[in-house]
Amino acid sequence: MVTPPDFQSWMGSVQARMEAALARLLPAAKIAPGRLHEAMRYAALEGGKRVRPLLAFAAGDLAGAAPERLEVAAAAVEMIHAYSLVHDDMPCMDDDALRRGKPTVHVEYDEATAMLVGDALQSLAFQLLSDSPIADCAETQLQMVRTLAHAAGSRGMAGGQAIDLASTGKALELPELEFMHIHKTGALIRAAVVLGALCGTLDAHARAQLERFAKFIGLAFQVVDDVLDAEASTATLGKTAGKDAKQGKSTYVSALGAARAKAFAEELRAESHAALACFGERALRLRQLADFVVLRQF
Amino acid sequence: MVTPPDFQSWMGSVQARMEAALARLLPAAKIAPGRLHEAMRYAALEGGKRVRPLLAFAAGDLAGAAPERLEVAAAAVEMIHAYSLVHDDMPCMDDDALRRGKPTVHVEYDEATAMLVGDALQSLAFQLLSDSPIADCAETQLQMVRTLAHAAGSRGMAGGQAIDLASTGKALELPELEFMHIHKTGALIRAAVVLGALCGTLDAHARAQLERFAKFIGLAFQVVDDVLDAEASTATLGKTAGKDAKQGKSTYVSALGAARAKAFAEELRAESHAALACFGERALRLRQLADFVVLRQF
Repeated sequence: MVTPPDFQSWMGSVQARMEAALARLLPAAKIAPGRLHEAMRYAALEGGKRVRPLLAFAAGDLAGAAPERLEVAAAAVEMIHAYSLVHDDMPCMDDDALRRGKPTVHVEYDEATAMLVGDALQSLAFQLLSDSPIADCAETQLQMVRTLAHAAGSRGMAGGQAIDLASTGKALELPELEFMHIHKTGALIRAAVVLGALCGTLDAHARAQLERFAKFIGLAFQVVDDVLDAEASTATLGKTAGKDAKQGKSTYVSALGAARAKAFAEELRAESHAALACFGERALRLRQLADFVVLRQF
Repeated sequence: MVTPPDFQSWMGSVQARMEAALARLLPAAKIAPGRLHEAMRYAALEGGKRVRPLLAFAAGDLAGAAPERLEVAAAAVEMIHAYSLVHDDMPCMDDDALRRGKPTVHVEYDEATAMLVGDALQSLAFQLLSDSPIADCAETQLQMVRTLAHAAGSRGMAGGQAIDLASTGKALELPELEFMHIHKTGALIRAAVVLGALCGTLDAHARAQLERFAKFIGLAFQVVDDVLDAEASTATLGKTAGKDAKQGKSTYVSALGAARAKAFAEELRAESHAALACFGERALRLRQLADFVVLRQF
């Protein structure tokens, strides 16, 4: 039996593979319009921990998916994530100047370019899902498009952001907070897991268990984000810390207090592990990712 | 032989059918997040002449496509068009307060909502293309996704807008102007024609001729738009007239003068008719649409 590489080196190898894939799949800056393409690359490259691609790869492993397919599917999810950050940082939304330790796109370029960067990254996501074969059949690949479109749209991520905007300055009850986050962050995290699985082969029961896992981990991710925003420094985060409180946003910390929020994250981590029970050892990476998401900085 | 209904009544019936389809395919305002859904409906309903859907229907007719399929494909194209108008009107882009005779979305709602409306309309376009069967096989439907994603993205419409932004205040040469418009307006018009055809069955030669037609008519559309912006009143247009000159934008009128711009539109109309020759009488609606686009107000 081959011992699997430890989690850190597996994560590092997926991250490196994704960086190369994104660099290849984004239009080159020398292609016209050059400034837009340069700004799209600025927004999507060298950024973040690539949690969504990591989830797609871990779920894809479980489904026996080829890494060449997973790269493309994960890149599509990451384009949606990157676009949402660019638009979210703009003055009419969160008005943030710092992201991943660098000036945000509208600061480095300008607002109009930031808008177009986000718009074009979204189109690129759907282009990637349709440009080359990344599933066993076209029907499954169309299902990937459907999954990502739902996750990104008004009943997914964009809808979650609208709820977030509408609730700024109001104290949300826990169920409302959960409803918001299931849309705002959860939908795309679920899509990452599902798209990874669709690159390979998995029966309906296994897929349902994966979706359960994704639901718990998506929510855990947000709870931990809220804790980090309240407790970590801007330098550690690479983005402006303490923003939620300043903007009067309801968070799991404002609703539960930091200690109970951390306990809730722990609970979600346990639930996510339980959802993976049917997979046994094959779900090692997903379990490790759940631990990584919840334990990342506290 | 049945006499086809005259052009005006055909156009009216497609427009009415599209209005009903869009009303059905957009999320209801009572579904959460209600304000976002209401604003999406405000942006996409009761608007414009529906030139792209008309082209999709006319091309689809030629390919024997069922109207139920054409509605969905045309709605997807129209969602992309509607999103581009919402973002284009925002303060960081064209900063326009009037569209189709109504306050623009960021004026009627707010900037953050306008941004999310555009983002969510784009997602909805791809959702529509993947939610239900609208082509003979999944492979063809995936080709629709690919066509629309390319047309909307950085090497299509969004790229054209970036070129437009970068060239404001500069006098463009004709080839540069054409390059910009082939992206900014032309790409989506071509996509409308191609998607209509893909709802039915058409051989490769016929498809190529349709694309030629679409290229000419897309450019003609923009030339006429430039003439109208220079010559018509705000009341007639339902949007702010004289904007191009005020913003120092290169247009076919600034590059050629109004008379030669009109002659150029006429030439493109003749070319578009020539591209349809192989279809004979079956291309009646497309020829009529070409005439409508070029002759609409002068």
